Amino acid sequence: MILILSENADPKGRDYTLLMEALHGLPGIQVKVHRIEGELRAVTEVYLIGDTKPLVIEEMQALPCVERVVRVSEEYRILGRHRDDSRPSHFEYQGLRFGQDTLHVFAGLCAVDTPEHVEQMCRALRDNGQVCTRMGAYKPRTSPYSFQGHGRACLDYVFDIAGKHGIRVIAMEVTHESHVDEIREALRRTGSPTGAMLQIGTRNTQNFELLKAVGRQQEFPVLIKRGFGITLDESLNAAEYMASEGNSRIVFGLRGMKTNMGDPHRNFVDFAHVPVVKRLTRMPVCIDPSHSVGTRARAPEGILDVMHATAQAVIAGANMVLVDFHPDPPTALVDGAQALLLSELPLFLEDVAIARDAYQRRAAAARRHAGD
Amino acid sequence: MILILSENADPKGRDYTLLMEALHGLPGIQVKVHRIEGELRAVTEVYLIGDTKPLVIEEMQALPCVERVVRVSEEYRILGRHRDDSRPSHFEYQGLRFGQDTLHVFAGLCAVDTPEHVEQMCRALRDNGQVCTRMGAYKPRTSPYSFQGHGRACLDYVFDIAGKHGIRVIAMEVTHESHVDEIREALRRTGSPTGAMLQIGTRNTQNFELLKAVGRQQEFPVLIKRGFGITLDESLNAAEYMASEGNSRIVFGLRGMKTNMGDPHRNFVDFAHVPVVKRLTRMPVCIDPSHSVGTRARAPEGILDVMHATAQAVIAGANMVLVDFHPDPPTALVDGAQALLLSELPLFLEDVAIARDAYQRRAAAARRHAGD
Amino acid sequence: MILILSENADPKGRDYTLLMEALHGLPGIQVKVHRIEGELRAVTEVYLIGDTKPLVIEEMQALPCVERVVRVSEEYRILGRHRDDSRPSHFEYQGLRFGQDTLHVFAGLCAVDTPEHVEQMCRALRDNGQVCTRMGAYKPRTSPYSFQGHGRACLDYVFDIAGKHGIRVIAMEVTHESHVDEIREALRRTGSPTGAMLQIGTRNTQNFELLKAVGRQQEFPVLIKRGFGITLDESLNAAEYMASEGNSRIVFGLRGMKTNMGDPHRNFVDFAHVPVVKRLTRMPVCIDPSHSVGTRARAPEGILDVMHATAQAVIAGANMVLVDFHPDPPTALVDGAQALLLSELPLFLEDVAIARDAYQRRAAAARRHAGD
Amino acid sequence: MILILSENADPKGRDYTLLMEALHGLPGIQVKVHRIEGELRAVTEVYLIGDTKPLVIEEMQALPCVERVVRVSEEYRILGRHRDDSRPSHFEYQGLRFGQDTLHVFAGLCAVDTPEHVEQMCRALRDNGQVCTRMGAYKPRTSPYSFQGHGRACLDYVFDIAGKHGIRVIAMEVTHESHVDEIREALRRTGSPTGAMLQIGTRNTQNFELLKAVGRQQEFPVLIKRGFGITLDESLNAAEYMASEGNSRIVFGLRGMKTNMGDPHRNFVDFAHVPVVKRLTRMPVCIDPSHSVGTRARAPEGILDVMHATAQAVIAGANMVLVDFHPDPPTALVDGAQALLLSELPLFLEDVAIARDAYQRRAAAARRHAGD
Repeated sequence: MILILSENADPKGRDYTLLMEALHGLPGIQVKVHRIEGELRAVTEVYLIGDTKPLVIEEMQALPCVERVVRVSEEYRILGRHRDDSRPSHFEYQGLRFGQDTLHVFAGLCAVDTPEHVEQMCRALRDNGQVCTRMGAYKPRTSPYSFQGHGRACLDYVFDIAGKHGIRVIAMEVTHESHVDEIREALRRTGSPTGAMLQIGTRNTQNFELLKAVGRQQEFPVLIKRGFGITLDESLNAAEYMASEGNSRIVFGLRGMKTNMGDPHRNFVDFAHVPVVKRLTRMPVCIDPSHSVGTRARAPEGILDVMHATAQAVIAGANMVLVDFHPDPPTALVDGAQALLLSELPLFLEDVAIARDAYQRRAAAARRHAGD
Repeated sequence: MILILSENADPKGRDYTLLMEALHGLPGIQVKVHRIEGELRAVTEVYLIGDTKPLVIEEMQALPCVERVVRVSEEYRILGRHRDDSRPSHFEYQGLRFGQDTLHVFAGLCAVDTPEHVEQMCRALRDNGQVCTRMGAYKPRTSPYSFQGHGRACLDYVFDIAGKHGIRVIAMEVTHESHVDEIREALRRTGSPTGAMLQIGTRNTQNFELLKAVGRQQEFPVLIKRGFGITLDESLNAAEYMASEGNSRIVFGLRGMKTNMGDPHRNFVDFAHVPVVKRLTRMPVCIDPSHSVGTRARAPEGILDVMHATAQAVIAGANMVLVDFHPDPPTALVDGAQALLLSELPLFLEDVAIARDAYQRRAAAARRHAGD
Repeated sequence: MILILSENADPKGRDYTLLMEALHGLPGIQVKVHRIEGELRAVTEVYLIGDTKPLVIEEMQALPCVERVVRVSEEYRILGRHRDDSRPSHFEYQGLRFGQDTLHVFAGLCAVDTPEHVEQMCRALRDNGQVCTRMGAYKPRTSPYSFQGHGRACLDYVFDIAGKHGIRVIAMEVTHESHVDEIREALRRTGSPTGAMLQIGTRNTQNFELLKAVGRQQEFPVLIKRGFGITLDESLNAAEYMASEGNSRIVFGLRGMKTNMGDPHRNFVDFAHVPVVKRLTRMPVCIDPSHSVGTRARAPEGILDVMHATAQAVIAGANMVLVDFHPDPPTALVDGAQALLLSELPLFLEDVAIARDAYQRRAAAARRHAGD
Repeated sequence: MILILSENADPKGRDYTLLMEALHGLPGIQVKVHRIEGELRAVTEVYLIGDTKPLVIEEMQALPCVERVVRVSEEYRILGRHRDDSRPSHFEYQGLRFGQDTLHVFAGLCAVDTPEHVEQMCRALRDNGQVCTRMGAYKPRTSPYSFQGHGRACLDYVFDIAGKHGIRVIAMEVTHESHVDEIREALRRTGSPTGAMLQIGTRNTQNFELLKAVGRQQEFPVLIKRGFGITLDESLNAAEYMASEGNSRIVFGLRGMKTNMGDPHRNFVDFAHVPVVKRLTRMPVCIDPSHSVGTRARAPEGILDVMHATAQAVIAGANMVLVDFHPDPPTALVDGAQALLLSELPLFLEDVAIARDAYQRRAAAARRHAGD
């Protein structure tokens, strides 16, 4: 059960103390308080964990400071959509709204290689009106003998260049809790106005210790990728691990699954799950067409497979697109084969816009028919 | 290697005889002649099977009656797209064009139950301007003790009612070669102007004897569904089995795959493969959102999962949609849980039209950028 | 519900007539009679299909001719193991017992190529005391352009040679109902004392029309292979299709599954399911290590992977082993890479004997501890 | 390329300095030195990483201190079996030999719950002559709201009790590098003579930061479980991550895979891969029948599925068995349903012994036939 406290509830006030006394007196119930700092206002949510079935909603609602009570099912209790659940399905970061009703493209480098390429990438983004990007510094690789990313060494120039080109958020994978500190320090050191969205890759979806670490901090929002060999339910529970530690500014990312089909793509594109995740949880949903599709194959009408997959996700309501570009794919150190060219950025963005427009027309048609 | 003969090549003429003598004289080469009856004209293709590498294209082109020569790779030699392959990617049937550039919706009953329901379904289709439908008579079921479809017993009234409502093509699954005869006889007996597209279900994708049987007849086109537990390549080879027997009026159908993901849908929706099949072969591509998605779940913006999946396929260029409707789903004998309501048909068709329009705008944008 | 009739129940007698009258009078119950011809005696089983819950066992038992009544669950009603189910888990054919307590090796040719190779294979079997073999005449292949087996053309010499070498049963795949007739006719024509076990391959596990056809005949027992892309439950239901038509002399075959693991073998070896199938049903369980493992790789202690897999199945109670040998693997037309050499037959058989002995010692230990 | 130095190579000696100078002078080659402390002697291996193709083996062999040179393929360069590779396939720990030629059973508690249960478990082990066990303190769980293990709090009493009962090695999962320190400190604090084998669970198989951390320490050997949704190759590379950091006392564990088969067991038992891993690498192979099978189902002859799976692994050469027992399964906090009873320990050990004996007889037969 979740109690959402009224906005002016004061942790040092008498009402708050009375509330806590009442809650701690409930037999067999564990009490966890989360303060979620929004850009406009802070919200305090109190989680009651244990057998909450005997608790009466009306009685809980009558406790001091309590504005609203949500009875949650066992699963995804923080992030899930529950009956009569009016908690928001969006958050703000760096002046941008990330929600189930918005769309942001994060085009960028899968793996940072040189300052020149970062510069070229950021300039192309600015020229096309983009304020978000992806930049890979820490790269988990299957073999210990493959290039593992420049790591901390590239952070300063990445944030520096991005900041100069008006980039407001960089999505960046972390594979160890120490990386979060390194990113925080680089941002401070460079004074870059850019922010970071921490990315948990598919190999770490069930690295619970890492999830707890990024869940304990609230400075950066987190993009968690679905695990490629586990069920959707298990991946959503992984997101819940972070939320249970206090950070619920989470975007859920689809990136293709491994299957037994000898898939013609690098992975089995799972973007039909975009509306499913939006139905089950309140998280915005990101897709990664580059790692899903994995090639530059072109369909008969001249459209790249990566664009087809992106359009499929966007027409079904995707909220964020993480996509690999590279100024010179053949020299890319990681996954060059799947990167788009900078010259393809305008077509890619136009393609996304057509699909987004179609999504909005579909939603309008659905509302109109519902009103018939 | 394929030799496409000139239109006026006469099997009884002297040139044709000379050609055959030349071909039969080629060492280690098997010769197979296919006459493909189109609505406008007939085409004769001669397949040379065996080690054709030593054959010189120019020499073959110089043989009498030969209009064009296509050197094919081993795989999908008839249905595939080969370098410099200008063979068509469409066919005509019942006055309709089925191609990689068209779109037809086949809404209808997964399993025929009563004449009343067939009547209601066909009336709704006519009222919404539709001329195609799906009607299941022969139903392969996992358990021998489940309802197996009305089979031959329902054919007469199905064709009768459909004909009266202006339906021009009914997609209908067959699981034994005798069913083709039963369908042919029912059409003759009823004198219905309706035609049939034979459907090979996912359990029979590698039932090679059945494939050869429907490949040997040329009266009906065939929709072959992808096998749910085999690779895409294996399924495309299954389509080639039919073509190798002479019938190349084939539509390839995607219907979701079985995976290990504990999928939130009935199957793993594989519609990202629409452009892949169009790239690898010249077949129009059908999707079956009902059996892929399998539920009536509704995403937050009020759109059913079945509609989301359909829109995803159509925005990527799907050419045919097989979708389950039912006048009264709770009484449906098979898969009622996934059927849409007749009252949802107008929204469904509008949704498809929005996605189709977006697909065409995307293709136009791609062409425009290519011309830059 | 199944009624097992007393041995002397006479279909033309008065008691039998009374029984049928009583059964046909049961509301909403369908009655199916199966006469199972054993080598020693015939058994008549009556299947009551429909809602049998209201029927009282004691009342049914009191009907004339009824010896025993088995209330079955929905699934695998004929082949399954049900509570208090004392129906046998074996059958006799050609003087051999095939049961959950026996073990037979069927070493032989995956695909018959020449009479000489059949001769060499059969001689090696006789020299090693074997009376069963596998011989592939009809070969379903992924591509229509691959060798499809010699089919009917090789049957006469296969049965002829096998008969001369004392082979009593040949396992032989069929892919169309007409093949059963061809086999029957070849046996008659040659007068060979050999028998045939019809084999349903993994691509036809859900070819229900073929299953019904081999289920309707009772001359030959059937080995049905598990479908490689469906659940175990679906495959067991496929076996039940045959049984529901009257033939319950069925062996269930494991042959490896397709998975997403990039398996080091040709398929994912599933022999841990040997005891599971024996627990769920009364069918003897066959394994096909050749198609599961698919290579001749050798582990450090000098044992081939195919032998390791076989030993794993046998120590867990497998009842039949289908294994590919070839006198000259490099010239084999199908799957030569996985065939064992004739010179490896003695070691293979010794290896199987060691594992079988271990199985029996394990079962004895389990019984001893249970009796403690 | 790996240079194995002579035993008396002295890192402070002149020869060693000359060697290093020569190696560091090789263009484009990175030099990594690993000193592996064995119980009897230390071995120094030098890894040359980069393009080593131009290096001539004879020349490298002639360098000072070099005893042997192994040219390795790209993959598994440290752990793999390479041509002419005579590096050992075993290691010693706590007076026990863990090799591809030994077998150890680690029966114990999946999750430690109470000191009483640890006591009962250890007593049963001692009474049955066992000196190894498994004890779970840190439990990664799918949901953040499930019991996560007693963690550090139980370490002292676990080591204490185990030490008193003569347990020499406890396998214990770690999910964060700090757990290694906690285990080390608990061992010191309690003065227990017991040792620990660190266990990396399937969710962390590609948690490369954790692998590197346990690879950097050499005090404890490591058991790494295969990842359940990745290829075998990817999992073997994960083991190589640890070895590349210096610790090559590694056991590789099979624990069943996730598949799309609706498996009758908890996971798809993958013990056919035991000989494959022994062929590809020099690691001893462990199996975890409890988590693979996941139930207490009993086959017709009275043998539990867990025992069948174990026997299958052992007859194919498995070197270590990790198996769940519990004094009172219904009260177990994690996975009680799959635990065996203490009273079943004698039968389990006898069953293992029968299978091990059969394995040895098989290996002897293979040697005998090879010598024919």
